[in-house]
Amino acid sequence: MLIVMKPDATQSEIERVSQIIKDLGYRPHPMAGSTRTAIGITGNDGSLDSAHFVSLSGVAEAIRVTKPYKLVTRELKPERSMIAVGDSFIGGSELALIAGPCAVETYDQVFETAEAVAATGAKFFRGGAYKPRTSPYAFQGTGEEGLRILSEVRSQFGLNIVTEAMDERGVDLVEEYGDCIQIGARNMQNFSLLKYVGKSNKPVLLKRGISATMEEFLLAAEYIMNEGNYNVILCERGIRTFGTHARNTLDLSVVPAVKATSHLPIIIDPSHGTGKNYMVGPMAKAGVAVGADGLLIEVHPNPREALCDGAQALLPEQFRLLSTELHALRSSLKPEPTAVSV
Amino acid sequence: MLIVMKPDATQSEIERVSQIIKDLGYRPHPMAGSTRTAIGITGNDGSLDSAHFVSLSGVAEAIRVTKPYKLVTRELKPERSMIAVGDSFIGGSELALIAGPCAVETYDQVFETAEAVAATGAKFFRGGAYKPRTSPYAFQGTGEEGLRILSEVRSQFGLNIVTEAMDERGVDLVEEYGDCIQIGARNMQNFSLLKYVGKSNKPVLLKRGISATMEEFLLAAEYIMNEGNYNVILCERGIRTFGTHARNTLDLSVVPAVKATSHLPIIIDPSHGTGKNYMVGPMAKAGVAVGADGLLIEVHPNPREALCDGAQALLPEQFRLLSTELHALRSSLKPEPTAVSV
Amino acid sequence: MLIVMKPDATQSEIERVSQIIKDLGYRPHPMAGSTRTAIGITGNDGSLDSAHFVSLSGVAEAIRVTKPYKLVTRELKPERSMIAVGDSFIGGSELALIAGPCAVETYDQVFETAEAVAATGAKFFRGGAYKPRTSPYAFQGTGEEGLRILSEVRSQFGLNIVTEAMDERGVDLVEEYGDCIQIGARNMQNFSLLKYVGKSNKPVLLKRGISATMEEFLLAAEYIMNEGNYNVILCERGIRTFGTHARNTLDLSVVPAVKATSHLPIIIDPSHGTGKNYMVGPMAKAGVAVGADGLLIEVHPNPREALCDGAQALLPEQFRLLSTELHALRSSLKPEPTAVSV
Amino acid sequence: MLIVMKPDATQSEIERVSQIIKDLGYRPHPMAGSTRTAIGITGNDGSLDSAHFVSLSGVAEAIRVTKPYKLVTRELKPERSMIAVGDSFIGGSELALIAGPCAVETYDQVFETAEAVAATGAKFFRGGAYKPRTSPYAFQGTGEEGLRILSEVRSQFGLNIVTEAMDERGVDLVEEYGDCIQIGARNMQNFSLLKYVGKSNKPVLLKRGISATMEEFLLAAEYIMNEGNYNVILCERGIRTFGTHARNTLDLSVVPAVKATSHLPIIIDPSHGTGKNYMVGPMAKAGVAVGADGLLIEVHPNPREALCDGAQALLPEQFRLLSTELHALRSSLKPEPTAVSV
Repeated sequence: MLIVMKPDATQSEIERVSQIIKDLGYRPHPMAGSTRTAIGITGNDGSLDSAHFVSLSGVAEAIRVTKPYKLVTRELKPERSMIAVGDSFIGGSELALIAGPCAVETYDQVFETAEAVAATGAKFFRGGAYKPRTSPYAFQGTGEEGLRILSEVRSQFGLNIVTEAMDERGVDLVEEYGDCIQIGARNMQNFSLLKYVGKSNKPVLLKRGISATMEEFLLAAEYIMNEGNYNVILCERGIRTFGTHARNTLDLSVVPAVKATSHLPIIIDPSHGTGKNYMVGPMAKAGVAVGADGLLIEVHPNPREALCDGAQALLPEQFRLLSTELHALRSSLKPEPTAVSV
Repeated sequence: MLIVMKPDATQSEIERVSQIIKDLGYRPHPMAGSTRTAIGITGNDGSLDSAHFVSLSGVAEAIRVTKPYKLVTRELKPERSMIAVGDSFIGGSELALIAGPCAVETYDQVFETAEAVAATGAKFFRGGAYKPRTSPYAFQGTGEEGLRILSEVRSQFGLNIVTEAMDERGVDLVEEYGDCIQIGARNMQNFSLLKYVGKSNKPVLLKRGISATMEEFLLAAEYIMNEGNYNVILCERGIRTFGTHARNTLDLSVVPAVKATSHLPIIIDPSHGTGKNYMVGPMAKAGVAVGADGLLIEVHPNPREALCDGAQALLPEQFRLLSTELHALRSSLKPEPTAVSV
Repeated sequence: MLIVMKPDATQSEIERVSQIIKDLGYRPHPMAGSTRTAIGITGNDGSLDSAHFVSLSGVAEAIRVTKPYKLVTRELKPERSMIAVGDSFIGGSELALIAGPCAVETYDQVFETAEAVAATGAKFFRGGAYKPRTSPYAFQGTGEEGLRILSEVRSQFGLNIVTEAMDERGVDLVEEYGDCIQIGARNMQNFSLLKYVGKSNKPVLLKRGISATMEEFLLAAEYIMNEGNYNVILCERGIRTFGTHARNTLDLSVVPAVKATSHLPIIIDPSHGTGKNYMVGPMAKAGVAVGADGLLIEVHPNPREALCDGAQALLPEQFRLLSTELHALRSSLKPEPTAVSV
Repeated sequence: MLIVMKPDATQSEIERVSQIIKDLGYRPHPMAGSTRTAIGITGNDGSLDSAHFVSLSGVAEAIRVTKPYKLVTRELKPERSMIAVGDSFIGGSELALIAGPCAVETYDQVFETAEAVAATGAKFFRGGAYKPRTSPYAFQGTGEEGLRILSEVRSQFGLNIVTEAMDERGVDLVEEYGDCIQIGARNMQNFSLLKYVGKSNKPVLLKRGISATMEEFLLAAEYIMNEGNYNVILCERGIRTFGTHARNTLDLSVVPAVKATSHLPIIIDPSHGTGKNYMVGPMAKAGVAVGADGLLIEVHPNPREALCDGAQALLPEQFRLLSTELHALRSSLKPEPTAVSV
């Protein structure tokens, strides 16, 4: 059930409704929109009786939720959400570019890349200190030492740090050193981890699993939001198909589909989505054209010697040129409908 | 094997090399580029001895072909091809828009649509007179009567007609009434039909099968070209995956992949590729941004009453607005490398 | 609509109902079962009025068909069908083994294989004279000369010949030389060809397309039956997935699914279904255990020199040993419910 | 690298080689086979110099490992492994049947099922106390209370308990209450969890991810073994494809593929693999016929009221009848090559 408050409902009316929901043993999720606040309810086993709510002061209506989601949905919040990541936002009118190396390798590699990324005006830097690798014998990341390097990147260049956590200890460390917790594709249905980051006060960048349906993807976000963390950024990074010309098949149609259903921002990762650097530019442009809120692009000063995924990384100079093209493309497109900050 | 002629090779030198290839029992495929002509050789069982050719007058070099393709490939023709369809071209600097209803239903339905399409400045009209339907009990098309209507559209509006043939009789009729023979996704590996259209003097729009790899797709084009018809336009129309939010998964990454390998033009069909009209606009823009040479878009004056695929059709007015956006988007992108007419 | 006749309905009552259906402009498909005959009706655009039929002499009831199929379905014929192929049957209590080389190459190769196959007691021999190959430069088959060799195999060894047709000319030739027309996976939705074999008096072995759903598969059979040829044998030969350990993913679960829906026999092709000869034995046994009516197994006297698909062929001696195991396995399983000849 | 010891190598020779490996900073994995012991080496970044080992007493040869796996592979241990689970084994000559409800719901539901399972002679009972559910609003399992009920099942019926852990706390509890830790399909690449169970002294039943290649599947097992826990049982439970007639596509060909590569036992889960109870019997038989070491089958006394996956559960009586058929089928097949206990 979803309680829509009147446009002029006061904060204390909203709080009173929330308290009544709690008193019934459920969990209220107030979500402020541009014209009104709505309150999602979770924790109920069956359907609720709207009679509890409709006569309360400030309540406009009580709506039964028909889709499997309650909190990601535009029924709860019609406007698109802007998510704060450090001192910037993802999901607003500005295209968010998140760039950096697949893996944090050395101080020099990271700083050289970060300097180039910062020079383009990008606000977000990404690099992995903990790497989920198919083989236990592949490079597993530099761990906390890598996080420290990322933290210095923030101090020096003012870039907001996005980095992956693979388990609870990792989440705690990313909270300490970074600005946004990435949950990788392989952990999209690691429900224990989703619940754990749902209790974090840092935003979460949630990557779609390689064979996740859109419904499973949104329900993974719902797991996080149900714990109280509403700051979720979705990321399409390619699905697994029979195709072989690219490493994965980047499913751009999920962007309009998500936007029709959910208020959460969605970005595209053309680097993992194709696995080939010559495809990154064309697919990044396609991502902007289809309406994505941002892009996650891998940049490495020396892709041939990268310890992870070098074949898909752009050189800093390639990224600089592409960045200019992408911002110009975004500006040339019709403006998106207004988005509102969570 | 591939014989590259010198930039200043004369026509008679080219013909002489071709004759020698024929005398050896093989088939020469001379392909003119902007700076030189190359001659592909097919019909040989094993590898050829370059000694036959390298000392001939006008020959620059003889190159062994290492990929499975011989004629679609940029090794044979480095510049991108422009294919004439009626009085216009697909594959050049101008974005080709091909629009029309999924199925030719009635004279009025087709003419109302064609008038709207022509008014946008589009050069190509598409409608199916023969419909490949999953069920034998579904509407199978209006047949030759439908082709006659399409032929009148050309007379009246000057639109070039693209329409599907499902068998040899259909090819003969499309040759008579239309300008471009569409081979549908389900027939992409109907090799007898591919060979038959390979002998046609009309260009062929070849749709990718729903589970075809890029290599299979290009080899299907190779079947057509091997018979002497070099006028092939490739069309990505979505592949079959586990996804359910769209009817198919439009694989835009095949555009840069094809362009890296082949000189043939490639267009995108966002209508069949998504099956949902609200996705057609975003995915059409993504198709332009990724570098497609054109788009195939379904337009119907009354989608709810369409006999076939109404859920994916745009209204004429929606198409008009989208058309303007698409041309503006194309203009804003950096120019493509020069393409040359076959 | 489906007209179920009374158990004691006479042949003339059945014919009278059929005539009335024809007089209404539709097509009757009488299908005899063990206890009663039912008559499927096709050719109607909308739903029919049962009042036309229920009061006719011999009619038990008129049933609306709710599924997309009318003729393949167990609603029309509850018992499983046995299909005559030459002088033997596929679909009865006996396991049907169809063996032979992927391609007919030479007289000696075929005869050596046929002698070994016949010695095992197998009733069916398969070899391709027309080969659908991904590349136009691959071996395309020996054509009519190959069919003549197959015809001699029948004369000499009494084996019934199953062989592929890729187009109408091929169908005509297979009708002349063979006993069963194979429609390959790539042509499963070549609807013109399906309609053509629907008019043949030879049984059709219809292979499932590599990305066909069960519904599409059954509707392809429906295309054939709708033209009056009810002798269709379904064949699962592997679907295309992301997997790489086998050439295709053999989908054995389609066997119980088909048997729950359709009366048509279904066989398994573990050779194309896996592409690896060491998997053929285990998957063939799995095919018997899951309830398939037969198996199509490739046998070649010298797989390393095979012109097509040698990696999946068994040696004659391997086939002999496997054949014994498969028949023993079939005997050890509980008997199938009674099947009745069409 | 892999050190093969001589057949008559003594335990102290094996230990000495292991110690030298440790002294070099690497990790030795001695694996005893029927005729000889081999020692896998992990922890090295590049390739090792065989000169360190070949002259040591008891060493037969030092072999470079060419595949991506080192410990799951038959190069290390040619014989198939038997894994002890409680007081029984999986992987030997006897077919292992693991049965029980998808979720532990109530004491009565579990005991009624367990009594029926025990009566068939099955040695293993499975039920989930922690349930990975797509939606946060679906039943999440009874948790530790459920584990206590399972523990009582062991006491009362002597069944060995297999149950899922979704995180480290879950692993600790399953170690306390159960006999075998199940890692579900969604966690197959939760590498932190794999490393954690790699340090457990309980065997691990590892389910294949719904879109995992065989190589990824085996490398997930390698993650566990690399930590020192060699007791891994693989489980195929269906992959995600475009198909819709079953919930997943059970990929039986992975059984011969795994057996050609690895010494680990592999079982089949026809319940999750099909999602439909009428398919469980046929696919279970196919699983036995293809050579699986065991089956995981869901049984529920009242499937319609099951809190999870009722549509795929068998009734106790159905399981009893199937169990008899499966054991008879296994006996009728040719014996497997000898397997040896780890």
